[in-house]
Amino acid sequence: MSTTPERVTVIGLGNLGRALAETFLHHGHPTTVWNRDAAKAEALVAAGATAEATAAEAISAGDLVIVALLDSTVSRQVLAGAADAVAGRALVNVTSGGPEDARELAAWAAEQGADYLHGAVYAVPQTIGTTESSISYSGSESVHQRWQTRLDLLGKGTFLGTDAGLASGYDVAILAGMYGMIGGFLHATAMAAAAGVRATELTPMLLSWLADSFPALSTFAEEIDSGGYTGGESSLAMNQAGLATIIRASQELDVPAGTLLPLKDLIDRQIAAGHAAASLSRAVESFRSAA
Amino acid sequence: MSTTPERVTVIGLGNLGRALAETFLHHGHPTTVWNRDAAKAEALVAAGATAEATAAEAISAGDLVIVALLDSTVSRQVLAGAADAVAGRALVNVTSGGPEDARELAAWAAEQGADYLHGAVYAVPQTIGTTESSISYSGSESVHQRWQTRLDLLGKGTFLGTDAGLASGYDVAILAGMYGMIGGFLHATAMAAAAGVRATELTPMLLSWLADSFPALSTFAEEIDSGGYTGGESSLAMNQAGLATIIRASQELDVPAGTLLPLKDLIDRQIAAGHAAASLSRAVESFRSAA
Ligand SMILES: NC(=O)c1ccc[n+]([C@@H]2O[C@H](COP(=O)([O-])OP(=O)(O)OC[C@H]3O[C@@H](n4cnc5c(N)ncnc54)[C@H](OP(=O)(O)O)[C@@H]3O)[C@@H](O)[C@H]2O)c1
Ligand SMILES: NC(=O)c1ccc[n+]([C@@H]2O[C@H](COP(=O)([O-])OP(=O)(O)OC[C@H]3O[C@@H](n4cnc5c(N)ncnc54)[C@H](OP(=O)(O)O)[C@@H]3O)[C@@H](O)[C@H]2O)c1
Repeated sequence: MSTTPERVTVIGLGNLGRALAETFLHHGHPTTVWNRDAAKAEALVAAGATAEATAAEAISAGDLVIVALLDSTVSRQVLAGAADAVAGRALVNVTSGGPEDARELAAWAAEQGADYLHGAVYAVPQTIGTTESSISYSGSESVHQRWQTRLDLLGKGTFLGTDAGLASGYDVAILAGMYGMIGGFLHATAMAAAAGVRATELTPMLLSWLADSFPALSTFAEEIDSGGYTGGESSLAMNQAGLATIIRASQELDVPAGTLLPLKDLIDRQIAAGHAAASLSRAVESFRSAA
Repeated sequence: MSTTPERVTVIGLGNLGRALAETFLHHGHPTTVWNRDAAKAEALVAAGATAEATAAEAISAGDLVIVALLDSTVSRQVLAGAADAVAGRALVNVTSGGPEDARELAAWAAEQGADYLHGAVYAVPQTIGTTESSISYSGSESVHQRWQTRLDLLGKGTFLGTDAGLASGYDVAILAGMYGMIGGFLHATAMAAAAGVRATELTPMLLSWLADSFPALSTFAEEIDSGGYTGGESSLAMNQAGLATIIRASQELDVPAGTLLPLKDLIDRQIAAGHAAASLSRAVESFRSAA
């Protein structure tokens, strides 16, 4: 049992790590930091943090250890180099990566006698510590419970489950969805410009239509989980025709319609397999048959 | 000047046209209908509508003429076949198409002495006549003003401007944006499934994150209109790295990442042109340079 339970360490002082350490300092918590490039610790030390020369020393100094490094390869390397220091620590890794990366690190941490919680940060560094920041966690439930109050300083926390890969699984899926929306948004503004409509004129109507479409996506989610795809209010056939109209309109406006072609392909393959009357949500099956 | 100003005609009794005619009948308005396949008029006639044998006769019977046909080719054909009947009519065409299609039909209508308003319907047939239905109009402002009360029975109306192509311009752009979001949603649920997360578990978090991203899209719209792209809170370089992480995570989950590749290409081309530090919104320029 630690005799100084309130000590926090931040490993990695990139844009995110610095914001995390600043938030802890701002709330008056003794904070130890480490970064490969020591210069990034200077402002934090001036604000009251303690900088250590090695990751192992910094990890030893904290009961709660937050890791915010470039990617999973780097967090694996840095933690492996400090393996002797991690026993008994609560490791909270908010480095982005895939679900398997998190599961592997959780297994490695267990071997070292450390508890591992993975976090997925939904915030930019500027909003860390505000109500605009939220963080999903999965892995060690005892780490989440023990440190919940402290972690909630960084952003609104949600615990997703004890599988350390869950937070990353949700995260990469959510970001894939977001990038789909961004690709659609950029295409939409390019088409609007070609039709004589400014992006700032289009966007309020587009966003309101996207929000209006959220219930349809929730219905699609139920169809996908049940595998029934019988909803059919918005059939694959209807959407094949609708998408063809949009692709043609885009080409007539001299805007390449490339962002829409992968979805067209997902739809076309389900229709070719005989499912024209099924719900549009059945297009998700094309990901499986292609894998 | 017509002596029977309240007569409405609906040309085309597909799923949408039938819902439009039903709504007018439901509100007690004398309604004339025409459809190529006359059988589709039967239930409406039983409900009080008058069916005509030709589009020209039906158009002659209405002061307000709503056209809801398969596509712009069909609406051009049907109207051309009834050219003698359109003079003095208020034509409201809610058939989907590109902005140029609407502009051409508006010019043709003007030559015939008809007023032309184009409508883009944001509703499914089931929601026509309810508060869930909205319709954007552009073209003849006098038609919109004269018939606004009647048109508002179908759905909440918005007049976008006197360019008949505007409603379609917005429409095809908005649908392109919606299909981008749907492609992203399907990819997200496929990744989640591979990571052990059900679509119905993912979707509430995904939708909340998409809604949280709306302000960023509004900022992007301002950057796109100004052409400055200096916002840079979310740089092209950051998103190139972020997208690479998601594509890799997707592949590790055995989910093909094809839906993300067009966006990757838009981003890569701007970075190759030296704009790594510019805002992600600059990726829209790749549509222009490719055209
Ligand atoms: N920034 C955000 O808004 C945000 C939001 C959500 C999630 N994330 C995730 O959080 C993580 C950190 O993001 P960030 O924005 O802080 O990134 P960043 O500013 O690029 O910082 C990267 C960090 O990794 C360190 N690093 C890189 N290579 C290293 C190596 N070989 N050995 C040791 N340290 C190394 C860097 O140290 P040096 O200073 O020595 O280079 C720096 O501390 C990423 O996985 C990111 O996806 C960030
Ligand atoms: N349904 C919606 O939710 C919705 C929403 C927004 C916009 N829209 C747009 O509204 C328009 C109509 O949609 P809808 O759902 O009603 O389509 P639909 O059910 O497929 O109906 C198509 C209509 O076009 C007619 N038609 C097709 N080819 C023709 C031809 N060569 N000559 C004469 N008539 C012909 C059909 O007549 P027959 O009965 O004789 O085949 C029918 O009346 C489309 O442009 C659609 O994109 C629909």
